[in-house]
Amino acid sequence: MPKPTRRTFIHALATVTLAALANPGTIQAQTTVPSPSGPDTTTPTTAVGKRTVGMVLFEGFQCLDVFGPIEMLSMVRGQFTFVMLAEKTGPIRSSQGPVVIADRTLTDPGEIDILIVPGGMGTRREVNNPGLITTMKTLAVATPHVASVCTGSALLARTGLLDPKPATSNKRAYAWATSQGPAVAWVAEAHWVETGKYLTSSGIYAAMDMALGLIERLFDRETAEKAAQSAEYEWHSDAHPDPFAKLNGLVP
Amino acid sequence: MPKPTRRTFIHALATVTLAALANPGTIQAQTTVPSPSGPDTTTPTTAVGKRTVGMVLFEGFQCLDVFGPIEMLSMVRGQFTFVMLAEKTGPIRSSQGPVVIADRTLTDPGEIDILIVPGGMGTRREVNNPGLITTMKTLAVATPHVASVCTGSALLARTGLLDPKPATSNKRAYAWATSQGPAVAWVAEAHWVETGKYLTSSGIYAAMDMALGLIERLFDRETAEKAAQSAEYEWHSDAHPDPFAKLNGLVP
Repeated sequence: MPKPTRRTFIHALATVTLAALANPGTIQAQTTVPSPSGPDTTTPTTAVGKRTVGMVLFEGFQCLDVFGPIEMLSMVRGQFTFVMLAEKTGPIRSSQGPVVIADRTLTDPGEIDILIVPGGMGTRREVNNPGLITTMKTLAVATPHVASVCTGSALLARTGLLDPKPATSNKRAYAWATSQGPAVAWVAEAHWVETGKYLTSSGIYAAMDMALGLIERLFDRETAEKAAQSAEYEWHSDAHPDPFAKLNGLVP
Repeated sequence: MPKPTRRTFIHALATVTLAALANPGTIQAQTTVPSPSGPDTTTPTTAVGKRTVGMVLFEGFQCLDVFGPIEMLSMVRGQFTFVMLAEKTGPIRSSQGPVVIADRTLTDPGEIDILIVPGGMGTRREVNNPGLITTMKTLAVATPHVASVCTGSALLARTGLLDPKPATSNKRAYAWATSQGPAVAWVAEAHWVETGKYLTSSGIYAAMDMALGLIERLFDRETAEKAAQSAEYEWHSDAHPDPFAKLNGLVP
C-alpha cells in the first residue's frame, strides 16, 4: 500500500461513495473480453454508448487533453458516446494545428453525463471569455461528472465551481492556472484530484490516468485495468505520487 | 543497461546511423527551456515548425494513434508542423466519433518530412483500398521518415515497403495485422521497431513512446526526454520490454 496522501484519501472517499452509486446493470453490460482484432475494435464503426461525454473545445485546445481521455473511455466498449462542444458548431483549430469539428453548442449540448474541459494555449484567452465560462458553468452544474485536464482547470476555476474544493492543474503552468481560482484548495503534488463530482488532472498525459480513474469510479477497478490493457497502456493510478510537482519545484 | 534484444539492437543501429545524419543546425535551433506558462505554450498560436508531419486519415482512424504522436512532437517547440492527409480533403470521422478535417490530399500533400499512418477499425476496410495504399506508398517512398501506429502497420505492410524488414504492430490485433504482410519480419516483443527510415509501433499508446524515439533520432536523447517532461509524460523508451506481447500470449 502506498503512503496515503490527502489526494488518495479524497479519491478513496469519492470512489467508495460513487461505487455505491454505480449502476450494476451497466457493470454487467460492460465487457472487455479481448478481441482477435484488437483494442481498436472498441466499436464496429464509431463509439455509440450509454453515457455521453461532452468535450469542451475552443481555439487553441491541446490535442492530447481532448483525445487522451476519449481514447481511454472508448476502451470500455459500448459505454460512451463523445460529443464535441463549443460556443459555435463547426471547425475549431487546436494548439497543434489539426482542426476538429464541434458537433453541438454549449447551450444546446443534448444530455451530457460527463463534461471534460481540456487545457491548451487557448485557455489564456478563454479565462477572459464570459460567454464560454458562463455557458460552461451552467452545463457543469447540470452534469453528473465534470473533469478538467491540464490548464482546463483554470477555465473550470473561473466558473467558481471548484471553490473551495481541492483541485490540481498542469505543473508547469501551475502559477498561472492556480491564479485563476484564488479560493480553490489547489493540490500541487497530485497526478489528479477527485472531489465529489469534480476531477482535475495535472499536465496533459495525466488525463489518461484520470480517465481510467473515472472508469474505476463508474464501473470498478478491474474494468479500468482492462481498459488500460486494451490501449496497451500502463496505468499510473492515483496512488502514485506526481514526480512533476517536484521536478518543477512546487514541492521540496 | 537492459539486456539487448533484436529490437534494441535494430534501434541502436538505426539511432547511431541517423544521429550521424542529424542536422546540427536543427539541434541548435531546438530549445525546451521550461516556460512559466507551461507545456501547452509549445507555440503562441498553432504549431508551425521546420519539419512537416503528414498524418494519414481515413474513416475510422484511432484518435490516440493520431494525436499521441502529434502531441509528443509538438513538445519540441517550433520544430514540427502537422498536416492532416486523406484521399479527399474535408471531414473524416474517427473510430471514437470525433471528426477531424483533412487539410490536403495524399496526392497533393506538399512537402512532407515525416509520414505517420495510424491504426483504427478503418484499417480493416482500407487494407483493401488500392487507392489509399497506392498513393500512400508513393508518398512513403518520397518521405524521409515513415511511421505507423498500432494496426497502421497493416496498411503500411500492404504497400510492400516493409518487406522483408523487421516491424511490429498492435499486440491484440497481431494475427490480423501481420497477415497483411507475409514477407515482413514481424517482431512480436517490441514496443516499437525502427529500421532504416521506417518506425512501427505497437498498440495505441506505444506511439507516444515511438514519437519520442523519433525525436531522439532527429535531435538527441536529452531533447526527447525534455519533450516527455513537457507533456508530464514518463517515457517508456525502447529499452523497455513490451509486456503486452506476453500478456496476449505472443511470447512465452
